[in-house]
Amino acid sequence: MKARIIVTLKNGVLDPQGKAIEAALASFGIAGVEGVRQGKVFDVEIDAADAATAETTLKTACEKLLANTVVENYAVEIA
Amino acid sequence: MKARIIVTLKNGVLDPQGKAIEAALASFGIAGVEGVRQGKVFDVEIDAADAATAETTLKTACEKLLANTVVENYAVEIA
Repeated sequence: MKARIIVTLKNGVLDPQGKAIEAALASFGIAGVEGVRQGKVFDVEIDAADAATAETTLKTACEKLLANTVVENYAVEIA
Repeated sequence: MKARIIVTLKNGVLDPQGKAIEAALASFGIAGVEGVRQGKVFDVEIDAADAATAETTLKTACEKLLANTVVENYAVEIA
């Protein structure tokens, strides 16, 4: 089955990359953007008996590899 | 208002980063993952009159800066 994992910075963690994007958008004349925070997305194809098993496996994957849980949150969506 | 932009590689475009993640997950003993493709997510705070205007602005932002439309797809979700 397919799943999507989204990893984002926790609130309060500085995001200089997001700030740079915000400044670049303004310099391109794109108005109204007041904040940008960049994260990562992983589209995963997983072989599991059911959605619950897949979710557990992917949460383990996030804890071990995909997210730095000190500064990042993750969300697992099973499609 | 808040919006989320997801930028993913088009089908058929090689994703060595995704392959590396897949191999790393296997080496960590996380079984069943058969494919990983990495993309980017941008959480944006935008000041716009309505959702349609915000969407148009953010699509322009994607075309100009956030996505390389030769090899990437983007999706804009207004929250």
